[in-house]
Amino acid sequence: MTSVPAALYRRVQEFYAAQMQAVDGGDGVAYAATFAPDAIFTSNALPAPVHGRSTIEASTTKLTHARLAAGTVRRHLQTTLVVDPHPDGSLAARSYVLLVETAADHGAELYLSTVCEDSLVPDGDTWLVARRSVLRDDLP
Amino acid sequence: MTSVPAALYRRVQEFYAAQMQAVDGGDGVAYAATFAPDAIFTSNALPAPVHGRSTIEASTTKLTHARLAAGTVRRHLQTTLVVDPHPDGSLAARSYVLLVETAADHGAELYLSTVCEDSLVPDGDTWLVARRSVLRDDLP
Amino acid sequence: MTSVPAALYRRVQEFYAAQMQAVDGGDGVAYAATFAPDAIFTSNALPAPVHGRSTIEASTTKLTHARLAAGTVRRHLQTTLVVDPHPDGSLAARSYVLLVETAADHGAELYLSTVCEDSLVPDGDTWLVARRSVLRDDLP
Repeated sequence: MTSVPAALYRRVQEFYAAQMQAVDGGDGVAYAATFAPDAIFTSNALPAPVHGRSTIEASTTKLTHARLAAGTVRRHLQTTLVVDPHPDGSLAARSYVLLVETAADHGAELYLSTVCEDSLVPDGDTWLVARRSVLRDDLP
Repeated sequence: MTSVPAALYRRVQEFYAAQMQAVDGGDGVAYAATFAPDAIFTSNALPAPVHGRSTIEASTTKLTHARLAAGTVRRHLQTTLVVDPHPDGSLAARSYVLLVETAADHGAELYLSTVCEDSLVPDGDTWLVARRSVLRDDLP
Repeated sequence: MTSVPAALYRRVQEFYAAQMQAVDGGDGVAYAATFAPDAIFTSNALPAPVHGRSTIEASTTKLTHARLAAGTVRRHLQTTLVVDPHPDGSLAARSYVLLVETAADHGAELYLSTVCEDSLVPDGDTWLVARRSVLRDDLP
């Protein structure tokens, strides 16, 4: 079991909460701003890695606007966060992100269970995602 | 991205965890005690705002006792908390609260996805909810 | 409402996150190592208490290997943690643990809603579970 300073762990929780609320609210610009300019985003749901903040911003904005236009609310519920500081000042952060969707005129439904594995780099008093790997539990 | 002192963020998490466990356990008195005497509770599920701790206590006690009598267990799972301190000493807190219900002889089911937006005011070493807005994702 | 030091609360969150990720990842050894050698594990789903770390390790390893072999991913999502320090240095910790499963070729499903009640004892800069009670919401 690793141990990180309390202030650090709290700031990482806070970072993720703000990031998840930004993307769920349809704010692709604020979401993308939490990634490094040269960030790499990989997933077992993607055919190839996505490179760069501007590409992340464009694709996130497109997808979230389509979802909001359809009247579907998505929530990224982040839990069970483990943070490991590395000697170079970066953090390895691994958490469970449960995606819950509520479509217009429907009840809430589990959409996906995922694991989010990030490399976070310091940026002033907060962090930027340098590399993100999203692993969907329903895909190999 | 805002940043709040570590001790503050932790105390707010702790405040919510105790509040959610109180209401799920059927303790309407302990739940209502986390609201200011003149608190205002609004929701897109309510026809009008609810005013005052004593009204919150009465309605919560009635609803939770009915649910427990029916053998239904409800859990308020709070995640993804963002806390913004205001200059007047109050806190704006926004979190996702997932309601999971387990009825007698049934498995667990997603009941609702909600967003909880509170204004918290200091009360000794803890907080009181001065205003709460609960937004159900399934309602406009 | 109780209040615990920020560093303590954070370390308990971190302890649980690492423990849940260990068991979900199939690492029965790391999971069992978070229990005291003479730990007692009770549940309303078990006919009798389980005694001792080595028994916990053996049964956890067997169950998780069977699940992983079947291609089912289980996640223990821990939320809503309340921590009460006791005068003897132990902690009473109560949290909601939502079990989400994703079977091969299926979407994510709620498996169980549970409450985890632990007595944690200090062990260097981390904790060991001395007693755990897991209460499934679907069982009396």
